[in-house]
Amino acid sequence: MKSWVPIPSGSHFSLANIPFGIISTAAIPARRPAVAIGAHVLDISAFAKNGGFSKLNDFPSDKLSVFSEPTLNAFAALGRPAHRLVRQYLRDVLREDTPYPDALQSNEALKKSALLPLSDVETHLPLTIGDYTDFFAGRNHAHNVGTLFRGPANALNPNYNHLPVAYHGRASSVVVSGTPLHRPVGQVLPAPGATTPVFKPCARLDIELELGTFICKGNQLGKSIPIKEAEDYIFGYVLMNDWSARDIQQWEYVPLGPFNAKNFGTSISAWVVLADALEPFRTQGLPNDVELQSYLREERKDNVLDINLEVAINTAKGNSRTITRTSSKNLLWSWPQMIAHHTISGCNLRTGDLLGSGTVSGFEEGTHGSILEQTKGGKVSVEIGGGESRKFLEDGDTVVIRGWSGSNEDELVGFGECSGQILAPITQV
Amino acid sequence: MKSWVPIPSGSHFSLANIPFGIISTAAIPARRPAVAIGAHVLDISAFAKNGGFSKLNDFPSDKLSVFSEPTLNAFAALGRPAHRLVRQYLRDVLREDTPYPDALQSNEALKKSALLPLSDVETHLPLTIGDYTDFFAGRNHAHNVGTLFRGPANALNPNYNHLPVAYHGRASSVVVSGTPLHRPVGQVLPAPGATTPVFKPCARLDIELELGTFICKGNQLGKSIPIKEAEDYIFGYVLMNDWSARDIQQWEYVPLGPFNAKNFGTSISAWVVLADALEPFRTQGLPNDVELQSYLREERKDNVLDINLEVAINTAKGNSRTITRTSSKNLLWSWPQMIAHHTISGCNLRTGDLLGSGTVSGFEEGTHGSILEQTKGGKVSVEIGGGESRKFLEDGDTVVIRGWSGSNEDELVGFGECSGQILAPITQV
Repeated sequence: MKSWVPIPSGSHFSLANIPFGIISTAAIPARRPAVAIGAHVLDISAFAKNGGFSKLNDFPSDKLSVFSEPTLNAFAALGRPAHRLVRQYLRDVLREDTPYPDALQSNEALKKSALLPLSDVETHLPLTIGDYTDFFAGRNHAHNVGTLFRGPANALNPNYNHLPVAYHGRASSVVVSGTPLHRPVGQVLPAPGATTPVFKPCARLDIELELGTFICKGNQLGKSIPIKEAEDYIFGYVLMNDWSARDIQQWEYVPLGPFNAKNFGTSISAWVVLADALEPFRTQGLPNDVELQSYLREERKDNVLDINLEVAINTAKGNSRTITRTSSKNLLWSWPQMIAHHTISGCNLRTGDLLGSGTVSGFEEGTHGSILEQTKGGKVSVEIGGGESRKFLEDGDTVVIRGWSGSNEDELVGFGECSGQILAPITQV
Repeated sequence: MKSWVPIPSGSHFSLANIPFGIISTAAIPARRPAVAIGAHVLDISAFAKNGGFSKLNDFPSDKLSVFSEPTLNAFAALGRPAHRLVRQYLRDVLREDTPYPDALQSNEALKKSALLPLSDVETHLPLTIGDYTDFFAGRNHAHNVGTLFRGPANALNPNYNHLPVAYHGRASSVVVSGTPLHRPVGQVLPAPGATTPVFKPCARLDIELELGTFICKGNQLGKSIPIKEAEDYIFGYVLMNDWSARDIQQWEYVPLGPFNAKNFGTSISAWVVLADALEPFRTQGLPNDVELQSYLREERKDNVLDINLEVAINTAKGNSRTITRTSSKNLLWSWPQMIAHHTISGCNLRTGDLLGSGTVSGFEEGTHGSILEQTKGGKVSVEIGGGESRKFLEDGDTVVIRGWSGSNEDELVGFGECSGQILAPITQV
């Protein structure tokens, strides 16, 4: 399927995608919804106000106000059938043989005001996040890190294969791709075996390559979400970088888990790829040989997504290297399993909640989703090139995560990128 | 100081208090701000609309809209000087020798519409909570529980006295006093030493007696809050019950901390006691003999609050017993220390964030803030009376936390109560 909007080959934003985000422009600073298409975005707020959706008969006209909101929460809350309807309609509007040429293609004034070069827009957090939960579903990562800390025999904790381990994260510091973050400072142990901490900037600043899921629908407090219904609660996916201060984490995390090691910032990509867009890219996740409790059992085998993932480090000196190439299929737990587990206690999800997958890693060199794994705990260096190497991140480094599905360069379903630069700490030590 | 509103002796809501909350009534179902006074509430929305604040010259009239909001967030965001001004003015309006009799006392129509019996109003969550963080600052509790699990020599983890340990909690399931909660179900180990979990209702359902603090002011991401300025970020305090599923927690919490064991519900009292109201009740916290990092050092010694705290269990059969009497001074860390630590990494707080203190306990029998401590891990029973006893909570039990400062029965500064009943699980096992 081709679009009348020129779509560069290799673009993540093909007609097969139609991801949603929130933009502003120099001309109109108000935040508003948009979809990305090739090297352009369609401002859906302007599109809706100018009758663009008038042919979308099944969509109630009193709901069009969701496209004038400064976040996607109201649109998300309409539920998956509405997302499907709107995405398919926009695809029809944008395709070469569009049945609705008047909606945009032949409306020169609207095209000028609503179809904007991607490079001219600023992107913002796509949804207001209620709660952010981070899972630990990347079993290879759990195994790699567990091996570093406890040796291979005890790499995975006893609960790992029985339930999707998770912790509650910090919603306030989730930032959109492109937002720089300051290196955290905090208490760390000065040497292995020390028992008195020192106060200094984090010296083991790391990334965690993750996928994120935005929730579109809430459940009643006390009432869990059955695994069979869990897909209905998924709005879409983003790339995520769960920045991690390993030295702070090591000192603070017993017994209640990571706190300051994570809460200084979490980056997500600007464009939410809707659940439907990734439906064709399902595959099997990692095998699990324990007998799962009934609430975690799924009928379908192709329960995880196959998304190509890459991590690159760009240094302040201008050197750059892709240090990681892997796939999101390296997860033990599916999103429906994570949702079912999250709510089995009765915990209520709300529209706009964000779930992280946990770090996606392979076992081989160059497939690790964290620097900790690649450098064997900071013992060996990763070469960047140009005479530069890293054991952990340095100030000025920019980390860029990219992710896409599909092999036909004209039909990719991708996220663009999730990037963030590390700046020097503000806090005086 | 006396009020022209009759205040029963022993009321938590004396003129020395003036706590803020959110109410609705059968006649006006819209949620709106109010203050509690004796056995009444003053509907500040109605009071403001009828010129009640016209004599409050230092308060900008364009800010009066904060009293028409369905939460206290907008009022909180005005900052502590504004809270002080409004609280003192309302106290002046309500006192026997009020300089502003026209504002309410002699305005019969307004009194009728705005001064309502407490028993006629429904209370709601006072603020929209952004993020909820739970600390672990009750050192006696940490010691008691650590002793149960690891023996007295290793009761406290090495980091405990160096930093206020905390974890990110679940904001969506924080509920106002009076909201019943369903017993959670989940994975638990069937016996000590087992490695394969079973799926069943929590059998070790517990409480945690805590204080909560609402944050009124945000900090910029990346920029920590200096401990000297931390008091400016405190709106006020609530009682909190951090319900805990001990058996679920035991299986799930390694290595990332509690998740489903806590996220099914956290109860808070309806009335926020403003920071100023508790200023006269400062005292020294537990001594800490380690040398603290500079960002945690405070000049003032009276850095914690002395609030009498009680926990009662009321059974479905009608038996009742106060099982705990203690004081909030049993904390190792002060709120400014918790705020300074929370943000030292650069984490940003926002208006409406809720911080929990961690469980407040003494060492002696009858002073424990959790049932786990009282029953020595479920080994001995707590007598309730009428032939009933408990090792943990049963369905139908109502837990009531009460808290107040002061010894003069006519000048108490209290919270009323934080109560919640445990209902049977909804989820089928």
